[in-house]
Amino acid sequence: MGPDAFEEMKSFTEELPQARALGLKVEHVEPGVAVLSMPWSAELVGDPETGVIHGGAVSTLMDTCCGGAVITHPDMLEATTATLDLRIDYMRPAQPGRTIFARAECYHVTRTVAFVRAQAWTEGDGDRPVAAATGAFTASGRRGAGQ
Amino acid sequence: MGPDAFEEMKSFTEELPQARALGLKVEHVEPGVAVLSMPWSAELVGDPETGVIHGGAVSTLMDTCCGGAVITHPDMLEATTATLDLRIDYMRPAQPGRTIFARAECYHVTRTVAFVRAQAWTEGDGDRPVAAATGAFTASGRRGAGQ
Amino acid sequence: MGPDAFEEMKSFTEELPQARALGLKVEHVEPGVAVLSMPWSAELVGDPETGVIHGGAVSTLMDTCCGGAVITHPDMLEATTATLDLRIDYMRPAQPGRTIFARAECYHVTRTVAFVRAQAWTEGDGDRPVAAATGAFTASGRRGAGQ
Amino acid sequence: MGPDAFEEMKSFTEELPQARALGLKVEHVEPGVAVLSMPWSAELVGDPETGVIHGGAVSTLMDTCCGGAVITHPDMLEATTATLDLRIDYMRPAQPGRTIFARAECYHVTRTVAFVRAQAWTEGDGDRPVAAATGAFTASGRRGAGQ
Repeated sequence: MGPDAFEEMKSFTEELPQARALGLKVEHVEPGVAVLSMPWSAELVGDPETGVIHGGAVSTLMDTCCGGAVITHPDMLEATTATLDLRIDYMRPAQPGRTIFARAECYHVTRTVAFVRAQAWTEGDGDRPVAAATGAFTASGRRGAGQ
Repeated sequence: MGPDAFEEMKSFTEELPQARALGLKVEHVEPGVAVLSMPWSAELVGDPETGVIHGGAVSTLMDTCCGGAVITHPDMLEATTATLDLRIDYMRPAQPGRTIFARAECYHVTRTVAFVRAQAWTEGDGDRPVAAATGAFTASGRRGAGQ
Repeated sequence: MGPDAFEEMKSFTEELPQARALGLKVEHVEPGVAVLSMPWSAELVGDPETGVIHGGAVSTLMDTCCGGAVITHPDMLEATTATLDLRIDYMRPAQPGRTIFARAECYHVTRTVAFVRAQAWTEGDGDRPVAAATGAFTASGRRGAGQ
Repeated sequence: MGPDAFEEMKSFTEELPQARALGLKVEHVEPGVAVLSMPWSAELVGDPETGVIHGGAVSTLMDTCCGGAVITHPDMLEATTATLDLRIDYMRPAQPGRTIFARAECYHVTRTVAFVRAQAWTEGDGDRPVAAATGAFTASGRRGAGQ
């Protein structure tokens, strides 16, 4: 994946309206892996008393990040995907006022389904995950060995 | 649950910043059940070519709706909750330009965990669900018979 | 689905070695729906002190039941399937000494994926579910409208 | 965790009737981590034509393994747990005739809920996972920072 592919994937992802509304940025991409960030914003707060970001925004961040990991996987024949299902475990509140990062890894691709897992954490606090995700996405895999 | 409780829950939910950003409205509440709506908006679009709403917005709608079903459950001692985990199955794209509805039902409450399921559909197309969700939320249940 | 189809599906399911080891029986089948039973057995106990069946046996019951709901769905072109992913929520212990039932419903089929949900309960106690499941299975759907 | 604790946990797990029926063995334990094995057996076969183990047996292996990771976590005040919910992704069939291994890691414990993830693979083929799991278990955590 050369610099052009990175720029292409970055533009594609960051121009999605929902990604723009949340301020999502593609920080890093490698084959089957994507890292995205979402800056803290008052508009995303779920609990006004604490300033903690709504779980739904974290969910969108992770969903988008998982999609990025799928479309950059070397076994994918076409760079398009859609979420089939996603499970998110919320482990602790994100820290108010800080950027949230997510890293997704596409660990298996069949002809029709890609499996992904992801983690999210607050900036400067990478050892204490905010949330973890596991999901299945539509795929156009080169091989169908999985099922 | 009298009209006052409905208004109280409605205000509480609709004033969450993330709910306001998405334009979420509480349409109906009964013990352990909540129905919310989310109007179509260009800002929520996930796929610019089709105008289909981003799965993450649907996810936030369902997450918030599930929370509403938990806090109105008669076995809850306190009207607060947080998502522990949520699984969302995306079945078909929402229809562009139309309001999306979600209905959540809290079907089991233990001392510490509430279980919820939800469905989302496009206005006027209630027989063909857009997404289904299953999740566990923190609870303050009256009884702990479950576990 | 005539009586022959029922007998065929019943034989197919009950002859699976794991189904035989657990004593699974097909109680009822209709298009996209299957009901199975699993008799209580000392060999399936997870907690020797209480006699409660191991969650894994309940999981196998529900997994098998979901597969039955998929292969009988009218949109399926071939009567074979495999579990892609399955989420099970355990709500309360099954009652010792009693048969456990599961009912699964395949509520959506695309060309490649079928979505299913299921519930399990103890005989004579159908109002208080033991577990609920949601999953995605491989499919050979007539239409691919879903994704 | 000294050798005594390992033996104690090993005996406890392997004496569960369902674990004995499947021939589960505790291979390795460290704080918050458990590795179990399940030997291939004709009785566990799900597909008679291929000899592949039923997903439900893999599910029981992983469920039990996750429980082992929870009860050995250093933040747990009592060595008991029960599955609240479990999601299993099946990636490829296990190879017939070979032992299946599972490794589970408890990566977060609150006062009431423990979060776990696990992987399963066929002996000698550790790079190609058979299944992955994510779940929430009941806990008696020392701290309640998570929620």
